[in-house]
Amino acid sequence: MPGFDEATSLRARPDGAGFDAQVDPDWTVAGRPNGGYLAAILALAATRAARAGGRDHPHPMSMSATYLRPPATGPGLVRTEVLRLGRTASQVRAAFEQDGQVCVDAVLVLVRLSEGSERRVPGPPAPTMPPEETCRPLAPAVPHLLRMATMAQLDLRLDPATAGFLDGQPGGEPELRAWLRWMDGREPDPVSLLFALDALPPATFEIGSTGWVPTLQLTSYVRALPAPGPLLVRQRAQLVLGGFVDELCHVWDASGRLVAQATQLAGVRFPGEADG
Amino acid sequence: MPGFDEATSLRARPDGAGFDAQVDPDWTVAGRPNGGYLAAILALAATRAARAGGRDHPHPMSMSATYLRPPATGPGLVRTEVLRLGRTASQVRAAFEQDGQVCVDAVLVLVRLSEGSERRVPGPPAPTMPPEETCRPLAPAVPHLLRMATMAQLDLRLDPATAGFLDGQPGGEPELRAWLRWMDGREPDPVSLLFALDALPPATFEIGSTGWVPTLQLTSYVRALPAPGPLLVRQRAQLVLGGFVDELCHVWDASGRLVAQATQLAGVRFPGEADG
Repeated sequence: MPGFDEATSLRARPDGAGFDAQVDPDWTVAGRPNGGYLAAILALAATRAARAGGRDHPHPMSMSATYLRPPATGPGLVRTEVLRLGRTASQVRAAFEQDGQVCVDAVLVLVRLSEGSERRVPGPPAPTMPPEETCRPLAPAVPHLLRMATMAQLDLRLDPATAGFLDGQPGGEPELRAWLRWMDGREPDPVSLLFALDALPPATFEIGSTGWVPTLQLTSYVRALPAPGPLLVRQRAQLVLGGFVDELCHVWDASGRLVAQATQLAGVRFPGEADG
Repeated sequence: MPGFDEATSLRARPDGAGFDAQVDPDWTVAGRPNGGYLAAILALAATRAARAGGRDHPHPMSMSATYLRPPATGPGLVRTEVLRLGRTASQVRAAFEQDGQVCVDAVLVLVRLSEGSERRVPGPPAPTMPPEETCRPLAPAVPHLLRMATMAQLDLRLDPATAGFLDGQPGGEPELRAWLRWMDGREPDPVSLLFALDALPPATFEIGSTGWVPTLQLTSYVRALPAPGPLLVRQRAQLVLGGFVDELCHVWDASGRLVAQATQLAGVRFPGEADG
């Protein structure tokens, strides 16, 4: 089983209390599990809960997660609560717990996405990107910033125009654009898109922010089945104010179609500022 | 007490089971309570739950709501669950129930917003708008579309450039822009911004969609204390696909500062299409 799928695998507890999960150190940033990685775990648990309720709704059309405290690596428990089983959509709450404390609380809207409906409005067009081979790979260690273990699992290549922070020379625009593939060769699917929507470093690195900052809230919409091939991911900060930033993320598949998007609220830190 | 505050008022149940609320018919669209109105009720309950836990976190910095079924007008119960009480932020779950069924499930991040921090990135600039007096008031009844009782409670004035649907001539761009005030003269505050983020008709009216459609998921971020005066609200549809639309909403205060924003996933219907 390839890396991402193994790292997100679940085992149902015999007593029905939920699912056992393992937070894998390969999917951490600064030692804390990546938020999109935890989102994928919660989504997989939610779809299993819907299936147990008789609904074939395997795709998270929306996932809204609130991050209370970062879990440690190692075992955790995912509890699910089916809120509603519908004909075309089901709603499931899923919470990630460690030591009896909720670390992440999420509610998902699950559906079965279908191929090829008409796009009445296509959404924002994919940005023009240099080909993958001329983009800059992002290594796990960005010494002056932070250690992103996830980058050893990904073939993530930044548009050089948004990669100034790698050389300590932020470009000044709070936006990152990148090609994204999984190192294990897995192709994107709706659950792994939840990871892709939180895979990039903070877009504020390009305006000089530093270090790890916690995601407080992440809402992701997965709207279409992605084509095989690299994803194009754009993360852009909107308002940066009072130690917090909100970022919009868009993901296009290899055919250039918008397939997923997210908004997130996170802490942010700049040199010389006290911790928020 | 003015209309909005009365319509969102809560009474704590003596048994501690939650808060009694009344869904007011004045805050409905096509007979169903407006989603932002329900969000405001949930936020008020959440801040009271945090206060009972000893935290002075009166402002919803984020609210993420999943809409399971539209409540009827009349009484409802709001249950709260404190997920975490923190130093600068607390997280509270709030659910709106009727007849023992959850209608809306929300998780809020509560803080105390402060005045006047530096905006390192100001966010999207306010669009250029004609003055209020030359904009088009939106009446409660738009005969060929739907009845929006909320519009009798609001002084909502559309930019004429985005008001073609009022005359049955949608302009073709999936965007609405409007000035917004409360008829009762109340000034905006963080809780009422949650309402403002869902106050406009669907932006897809400007590309020919019809009738009422349900909000499935709404995530709102309130980032700053709004100045008194009219709000400028822009609602824009992004991807319209397979009977669903996602919309981004931005709200600027009378001083032109971005104060709040939201993303929502909703159903959408066009003439000649079957119900989704």
